This record gives sequence, C-alpha cells and structure tokens, in this order.
Amino acid sequence: MQETGSISIHTENIFPIIKKFLYSDHEIFLRELVSNAVDATQKLKSLAQLGEYQGEAGELKVTVSVDKEARTITVSDRGIGMTAEEIKKYINQIAFSGATEFVEKYKDKDAAAKDQIIGQFGLGFYSAFMVAKEVEIFSKSFREGTEAARWICDGSTEFTLETTEKAERGTDVVLHVAEDSDEFLEPQRLRTILTKYCKFLPIPIEFEGEVINQTQPIWTKQPAELTDEDYTKFYQELYPFSDAPLFWIHLNVDYPFNLTGILYFPKVKDELQLQRNKIQLYSRQVFITDEVKDVVPEFLMLLHGVLDSPDIPLNVSRSFLQADANVRKINQYITKKVADKLAEIFRKERSSFEEKWGDIGMFVKYGMLSDDKFYDRAKDIALVQNVSGKFFTLNEYKEQVQANQQDKNEQTVLLYTTDAEAQHAYVVAAQDRGYDVLKLDGVLDSHFIGLLEQKLEKTTFKRVDADTVSKLIEKDETTESVLTDDEKTKLQELFAKAINNPQMNVQVDAMAPQDAPVIITLPEFMRRMKDMQRAGGGGGMAMFGSLPDSYTVSVNANNPVAQRVLKADDEAAAKLAKQAFDLALLAQGMLKGEALTAFVKRSADLLAAE
Amino acid sequence: MQETGSISIHTENIFPIIKKFLYSDHEIFLRELVSNAVDATQKLKSLAQLGEYQGEAGELKVTVSVDKEARTITVSDRGIGMTAEEIKKYINQIAFSGATEFVEKYKDKDAAAKDQIIGQFGLGFYSAFMVAKEVEIFSKSFREGTEAARWICDGSTEFTLETTEKAERGTDVVLHVAEDSDEFLEPQRLRTILTKYCKFLPIPIEFEGEVINQTQPIWTKQPAELTDEDYTKFYQELYPFSDAPLFWIHLNVDYPFNLTGILYFPKVKDELQLQRNKIQLYSRQVFITDEVKDVVPEFLMLLHGVLDSPDIPLNVSRSFLQADANVRKINQYITKKVADKLAEIFRKERSSFEEKWGDIGMFVKYGMLSDDKFYDRAKDIALVQNVSGKFFTLNEYKEQVQANQQDKNEQTVLLYTTDAEAQHAYVVAAQDRGYDVLKLDGVLDSHFIGLLEQKLEKTTFKRVDADTVSKLIEKDETTESVLTDDEKTKLQELFAKAINNPQMNVQVDAMAPQDAPVIITLPEFMRRMKDMQRAGGGGGMAMFGSLPDSYTVSVNANNPVAQRVLKADDEAAAKLAKQAFDLALLAQGMLKGEALTAFVKRSADLLAAE
Repeated sequence: MQETGSISIHTENIFPIIKKFLYSDHEIFLRELVSNAVDATQKLKSLAQLGEYQGEAGELKVTVSVDKEARTITVSDRGIGMTAEEIKKYINQIAFSGATEFVEKYKDKDAAAKDQIIGQFGLGFYSAFMVAKEVEIFSKSFREGTEAARWICDGSTEFTLETTEKAERGTDVVLHVAEDSDEFLEPQRLRTILTKYCKFLPIPIEFEGEVINQTQPIWTKQPAELTDEDYTKFYQELYPFSDAPLFWIHLNVDYPFNLTGILYFPKVKDELQLQRNKIQLYSRQVFITDEVKDVVPEFLMLLHGVLDSPDIPLNVSRSFLQADANVRKINQYITKKVADKLAEIFRKERSSFEEKWGDIGMFVKYGMLSDDKFYDRAKDIALVQNVSGKFFTLNEYKEQVQANQQDKNEQTVLLYTTDAEAQHAYVVAAQDRGYDVLKLDGVLDSHFIGLLEQKLEKTTFKRVDADTVSKLIEKDETTESVLTDDEKTKLQELFAKAINNPQMNVQVDAMAPQDAPVIITLPEFMRRMKDMQRAGGGGGMAMFGSLPDSYTVSVNANNPVAQRVLKADDEAAAKLAKQAFDLALLAQGMLKGEALTAFVKRSADLLAAE
Repeated sequence: MQETGSISIHTENIFPIIKKFLYSDHEIFLRELVSNAVDATQKLKSLAQLGEYQGEAGELKVTVSVDKEARTITVSDRGIGMTAEEIKKYINQIAFSGATEFVEKYKDKDAAAKDQIIGQFGLGFYSAFMVAKEVEIFSKSFREGTEAARWICDGSTEFTLETTEKAERGTDVVLHVAEDSDEFLEPQRLRTILTKYCKFLPIPIEFEGEVINQTQPIWTKQPAELTDEDYTKFYQELYPFSDAPLFWIHLNVDYPFNLTGILYFPKVKDELQLQRNKIQLYSRQVFITDEVKDVVPEFLMLLHGVLDSPDIPLNVSRSFLQADANVRKINQYITKKVADKLAEIFRKERSSFEEKWGDIGMFVKYGMLSDDKFYDRAKDIALVQNVSGKFFTLNEYKEQVQANQQDKNEQTVLLYTTDAEAQHAYVVAAQDRGYDVLKLDGVLDSHFIGLLEQKLEKTTFKRVDADTVSKLIEKDETTESVLTDDEKTKLQELFAKAINNPQMNVQVDAMAPQDAPVIITLPEFMRRMKDMQRAGGGGGMAMFGSLPDSYTVSVNANNPVAQRVLKADDEAAAKLAKQAFDLALLAQGMLKGEALTAFVKRSADLLAAE
C-alpha cells in the first residue's frame, strides 16, 4: 500500500489558537485594525497620486469610536474600501496569507510587496476575535459603480456576505465586544492603547473628536530640516519630566536595510537605577515593543529613543531574531554610529565632552567591556578624571604620570581612589609625595581597571590605601630609620600587644617624620579578592568560605610618637599605642560601633577635664 | 445579494506560522516529541493493566538518538504505536485538534480526556517542523495482526503513507534536520534540552546509552513516605552548591484543582541579590517554565522548588493566565499553605523559628506588605528582634515596653536602629535610659515600619538618633539646667559661630551631666522624607529639588564642657566648641574627608607633643 494525500486542517480549530496563543496581549487587536485602516488610506493616497483615482479624496483620517451601550468598537477609514469580491478574496479565503506574504517579503525584499493591503501584521484582522464575539465589516470600494458590502461573522467559520447601503467610500469594522472583554469598552482604556501603539501613525487617528497622533514624527524627517530644539522637544514628549538629553544620533539608512530613528544619550541620575527598555521599536511608525534586547547591542540598551525598521522581524522567537542577518547588521551599524558620534564630539568639543563624561562614561566603559570592537573604537576618547577634576585620555594620562610613577620594574603604577572622601588621608599623602590620583568610583570601574590592565602595556592600578605612600610605587630609594633594630623590634611588640588583634599585621617602617604615626593599609591583591568574593563571582570562591580580613598596620619609626611610646612606662606606652592605632582606624573609616563610642567618650572626658 | 459560506484556510500557510510564531524557543520540539512518546508508552501500560493488551510489554523506555552524518534526530518509543489508519486520523486530519481538546479539557475537566494520545501540548507533533525539513514516522500498533506504517512529509501539506517493515511495536519519529538548525545535531545541545525539560518524566528516557531522568521525583510521592533527607537531597539536585533549605512545604491536592509540588524556603545570603524565578513549573512531570509570575503570589516568588499542575493553562497570554479561575485558586491555596506552615513551626518550635527568622523574616514581611490577607494570617507570628538579640512577637513587644516607653500622649514609642554599629552611641544612650531598641535594618523594614504604624494602635516608631535621649519619648518631666538663660543664649551663640554651618540648628538643652557635650540628631519626619526622596518615590517630590540637610545640634547645658566654653577666652572657646562638635559628628558618622583628616592630624600632633 502507498498513498499520498493532503494534510487537512479544520478551520474551526483555528480561532481558539488565534485567540489564546498567538498574541500575548489582547489589546493588540486595536493596533492591528488601525494599522489596516491606515494601510487602506495610504493606498488610496498612492492611487490618487498615480492618477488611478480621480474622485474626491475627502478628509483622509481613521476614526475609532466606542459605544458602551451597544457594546461596539468601530474602526472607520476612508481608504480604498473593498467590494464583496475583494472581501471574499482578502478576508474569507486567504485569511492567513498575510503570514506567508510576510515571510516572502523578507525573502526577496520586494519593495512593492510592502504596500500590500493586508499589512505586515499578517493575522491582523482576525485578532479582532480576541475581544469580539461578532465582527461586521461595512465597505465601499473606491472603484466607481461598485456596490457596498456587509460581511458578518460570529467567530465560527461561517460568514454572511450581502450588499448594503454605505454613503462614504472606505471600510468600517464593527466589533461586538465579548463579555470577557468588557475592559475594552472603557474609553480611557482605548485611549491608552491608541496612545501606546498609534501615536506616530502617518494618517490622523481620531478618537472622541480628537486626533491622537503626530503623523510626521521627527525621525521620519531629514536631519537637515531639524533644529536642536526639535530633538529635545521630541525627547520631552517621549519621556516627560526627564532632564534634557546629552546628545543624540539621528539614524537614517536605506541600504542594505531600512532603519530610521533617534537615539538619545540620557543624563544619568543614579548609576544603580539605570533604566533599560527605554528604546521604543516601531515598524513603519507603528509601535511594536519597548523590549529591544537583541536588536540593540546590550551596552546600548541604556540609551533612550526610537528605532523604526520594517526589516526587523516581528513577533518571532528570540533565537530567530538573534540569527537574523538584518538584525545583526543593524546591531553593528548602531554600534558604529554611536562610536562615530562620540569621536566627533570628542574632536570638535572636547570641553563639552568632558563636561558630559560623568554621564557618557558609563556607556563607553560598558561598551568597551562588552564589545572588543567598541573598545578599539573608543580607546582613544575614553577619559579618566583625577581627584582634582582634570580629565585625560588614557594615553595622555600615562604620559603625564610616567616620569614620576614608574616603579623600579618599569611598570607605570596608576593610583586611584574609589571614594575620595573616605580615603581622603591617603589621597593627601599620595599627592604630598607628588603622585597623581585618579577617581575611579563608578559601579563599572573595578571591571574597567581589570580591562585596562589587560590592554595597556606595563601598567598596573593600585588603590591609594593599598600600601604606605613610600611603598605604593616601589623605587630604588629607602628612608633611613632613626631607630635601631632593637628599638624597632620592641616598638613592633608594644604595638602588637596593645592592638591585640590577629587580623592586624603590625610592622615598623621608616617613613617621613611628618607622616602619620600609624597607617593601616589593605594590599591591592587582597582587596580585589575580597571584592570578587563579595560580588559573588570568582568562580566558586564562595565555597572556600570568607577570606579573613588581613590588614597591614605600619608604625612610623620616624614619627615622634614612636619615641614617646618607647620611652613611656608600660601602661602609658600601651595607652599611647592604642590611641595612635585608633586614629589610624579613624582615618581608614574603620573605627566603629562600641570602639568609636568609647573613643568619643574618652575624648569628651578629656575635653571636660583639661 | 446575500450569500453565506465558510472561511477557508490554506493549509500551506500554516507551517510558517507554527515555525515562527507559535513557540518562542525552537528547542521545544524535543519536549513535544518526547512527551508524545511518553504518553504513548503510558497508554500501553494502562492497557496492559486493564488486560486489553496481553503481549510482552518489553523494556518500556523512550530512546533519543542523533546521527550527525545522516543529519537525523530520532525519538523512539515502545508504546501503543499507530496503524496507517490511526496515523491518518491523528496526524493528517486532526492536526490541530490538540488545541481544541486542550480548550475543551479545561471546560469540563473530564479526567479521561487527560489520557489522550495527542497530548496536552496540542500542536506538539508539528513543532518538529521548526527544526526539520522532513519528518518520517515509522509505527507499528500494539494490536495484533496490523501492519507497520511509514509516513513522510517535507513540511508542505503533501504526505506519503505506506506499509513498511518494523520489528518492534511502537513509534519512531525521524527528523531530517534543516540547514538552519544545525545546533540541534550537537549531542551536548540535545542533552541540555533533555535535562531541562525531561528530567522528571515518568518513563525512562535514554540518550547516548544513559537514562537521563528520574521517573519518580519525590513530589509525586506521599509525604508520609519521605524523610527530611529525601527533601534536602532533592533540593541539592535542583540547586547544586546551595545551602540547605530552612524548611519546605509539600503540596498535594486533588480537588478542586490538581497540584503537587514542593516549595522550599531558601537560606537568604544577601537581601539585595535575591533570586526570583527559582520555582520550576511542571505539567505532569514535563518541565514548562521557570517563570511562575502570576501562578505564584508575588511575595512567594522568592521561594524555591517545583510545582506540578495540569490545571495551569500553558503557553497562553499573561492576561489570560491572570484571569484563570484555577490559577487564582492555586495562588490562594499556596498562600494559605505557607501561612499555615509558618504558624505550625512558630507554635511547635519557637526557638527554631527564631533562629531562622533572619531568613524567613523577609518573606513574611514582604507578604504582609503586599497581601492584606497574609498580614492577618501572619501578624501573630511575625517577629521583631532587639539589639540584644531577643525576639518578640509584635504583641509581646508592645506589652514588654509599654510601661516605660509611653509618652505623655499615651502613644507607645518603639525605638529602632537601622545600623546598630553606626548608631552605637545613640543606642547606648537609649539603653542607659532604660529603653529597649529594635534592630530594623532590612531592606523592607522602612516599609514594614510604615505598615505597622497603620495597623497597630497608638504606636509610633522613632529611630534612636531622631532626638536627644531625653526627648525621644516625651514625658511630663524636665531636667533642670545649671545655666542661666543668659548663659544659655551665650553658649548657643558661641557654638553657632564656631560651627558656622546653616544646616546645623544649634540649641542648648539641659541633659544629664554624663550625657555627651554635644549631640547631633535628625528628626524622624525629616529623615523619612529624605529616605523617600532618595528612593525616587514620594509622588514626584524629586521635582522640588533635594531637601536641604537640616540637623539639630543639641549642646548639653549640664556637661562640664559647657562651663569651660563659657569661661574660656574667645579663641579657646571656639576651639573647644569645635572639638566638641567634631566629636558629635564622629559619633553620628558625619566627620568625613578633609575634616576627618584634619581631626586625625590634629589629634596625632597632640599625641606627639604631649
């Protein structure tokens, strides 16, 4: 036995699928119907321009209305309309042709196909049944001498089609709203949906006597026609109550893909409260989504603005989207445009670039970290800022500090602070030594430091409190100690005993006499390990349990306090050592809780008694 | 004219829809095919039990294999198999019946319908075309005397069906993988997919000679059969490297909906790194998703574990899910079960409940904040902890402190600290006064305080540094001042001049002589406003710009320092006042940066010179 045959699909099984599976949001029905109405209207405009329609065009608008009593929503257009035959062709028979045409369109990119009446949304019309128990179409074709037609269907596969009277050219789609979709009979709800999806459609959309859309949003215009004010005004419309954007990029490309849009660099208020998903994706002025992951490079998700491209596949699965050649090209194009714009501002307006760096910096660093190509594009314009507020490019900075901050192994040591206030004493000590200190206090900066150490030759970073100032950058010079070796040993023992804490490794160092009597430091390596552990990363380091805190306590052999401790009796020496250590803890921000309360109390008592 | 007719759908348009629109992930095809194979196998087991099949069952397993050379993936079962007629019925003609049956099933809840061969996934089989350019079925029915059949289809609507030779009963589905789906020819990829979706299927699934699943996961067993070790072991399997869970709830309900599963309360490591989406949702042991939003109450999203219910609609839109009556009931059921379990532990093992409160507390507080019903269920077991580490229920605590902490307006004032270390001096001052201080330092605690102030009568919360200790709880008693009014005025002026900062409102108060010479406080109301502003909320308060910092500086008229300042000459008075103020800043953690460095330097110089 062998036979061949056709797989047959029972139409009555299709509606439940459309209704429940195809769209994640029922509100989409309105986008679909209004889009169809706009397409029919634009088609009429084209025909009129081509001279194929010579009648009166009239006021070309789409009207949405709702009648709560009658439980109907009506979408009316004055577009090309349909004859009964056309309804049969477009609505009854090739209900699902949209999807095929959609697939076809992306195959051969036939521009003409883009003007089809049953639009890009494929299943568009039938989404009406997500909210309606019955749908009526009243339509009158633009063709002279044709009769108006009425089509009605209750969501089963049976329809009725008949001639009817209709004064005006165009199509009215009337939805008889189902009981479970009452929400869509609320005018406020409809207005919200219209504003979300149809705000920038190219034909006026009227609702409750008001046009709710801008038919020519600025991204559809040429950059040359637009002023800075146009751009900032549009930004305010998109994001009311936001600070003005720093700058923007107007995208406008036809080939090899079609993409328009405006990307804004926002002012960053709080690094930790960055808002993703502020880019709105449109397809020929119809709002699609604000989830642009996979369309926009990850590090540019923090930008704001709009993108409009008919070449981004809609409603498809993520894996499909990621694999799409156009999407990949769009991705690369946007990255390049952003890098070019940054380079242009850097070149033409360095001071304004520096002013904005506080906001731009994070995008640039994020981009450099996540995209090697972007690193190469941005490495000559990325800035670092020192604690005095001066900006440098990476090359400028290395050149600036190289002479003074090279260690004996010819490594350039770049000093930084993650909190200029908390590490103030250490910053001052480094500056007094003639060193420069960078401010690297952003959330991305620890990763950025790691990246730069990989990329820049013979360069390491050290936090200012990673060692005492004389050892931060190791040179071939030493400070003489006024103490003998025996005295040093005794001093070490006295302090270790007074401090009495195994996490504090006491050592005696010869520093300048004016340096603090005691300095507490945490070696750079140790601090990075602990940071990694805290971040929960570090390749399962958490499994080894917490690293113990382990600080270096350097007692300054040349500070007069050392002499006093050595000369005092045991009790007084311990008290002095403890007080000097407490002051070092204070400078490092480590004197807390009970110890701080005791220190304050002791000091207050002294103040009262003096 | 009037006519009626049937909407016709061209089958050839269906495949693109399935392929691109219906499933968000292509990998789903394997779940669908393996599920079908499992269903067919279980059906055979049922028939054998009923005596309707008396042949040799053999080793009932499902085998998945891949042949990279031949570019095929094969899913084989030894289930009931299909005759050519059955293939025509199930595969060719009612391809989409699954969806209808699916909808039907939820309508009348006919348990028998659940055993249907073409399973719950409706479009299951056809998802093969998401990755295959051609699909073959080889099948031999369990019925004696039937011929084996081979069906082949290239993704168009044409199929070929013929008799064939097949030794074993059951079905082999052979996918000829399409060029754009090469990834699915990698055994490692297939193993990952199988592990994700099929880990707990009830029939052994073999891949590369290994069974990859547990056929009887513990949630399918009765709680009485299981030990604590079984539960913790299963937890470790689900979340390797995790700490042991605190406790768990075994869900097992048949009516009015079917729900099994185990919810675990995890140990919370870091409040800020809470992981949602750790609950896995299954439908009859097939993994569906780990996005359980809308199925599980928001505040229980932080729990871990598995839920298994055939009564949760799959692959449907969110709005549909939220409206589903079963989902709502399941939601309420889980909430109640969690509350019951907590109450049980509280009642039976109070000390263990207290030990675990650090981890449980956040769930409970989140629940009380977000669900009024849960507040009522949890209000008698919710705990607060004081700085000494002792736990109380809300009622216990109010009773405990009421006598001592009622103010003159009969409000009970509950004192708390958000950081016992940073606010140590204030905590000690309150304790010295005989007050109790709560530790409310969690991320949710500021909201929890707001909730409790609404719910508890005549109760307000004040942070320990909201005022000087004598005014924290206002009573009808005053401390006498040793200073005259003139002296107070002079003292106020001296300090205000020395401090020279408009944000510091200096006042002179009569406190106990042993209280600090100067105390800095921030009124509760002011601090809450600032916290709200910082959180970005507060109903657009950000628009008014930042609130200025405004602290109260209370100079203690009765501390000896006050006398010394009054008696000193101008310069010495200013120096003394400044030092006393610096100590107050230190105690409040507000002496920072340059000021702190200067203070430390000054103190170190004194130490060297003494």
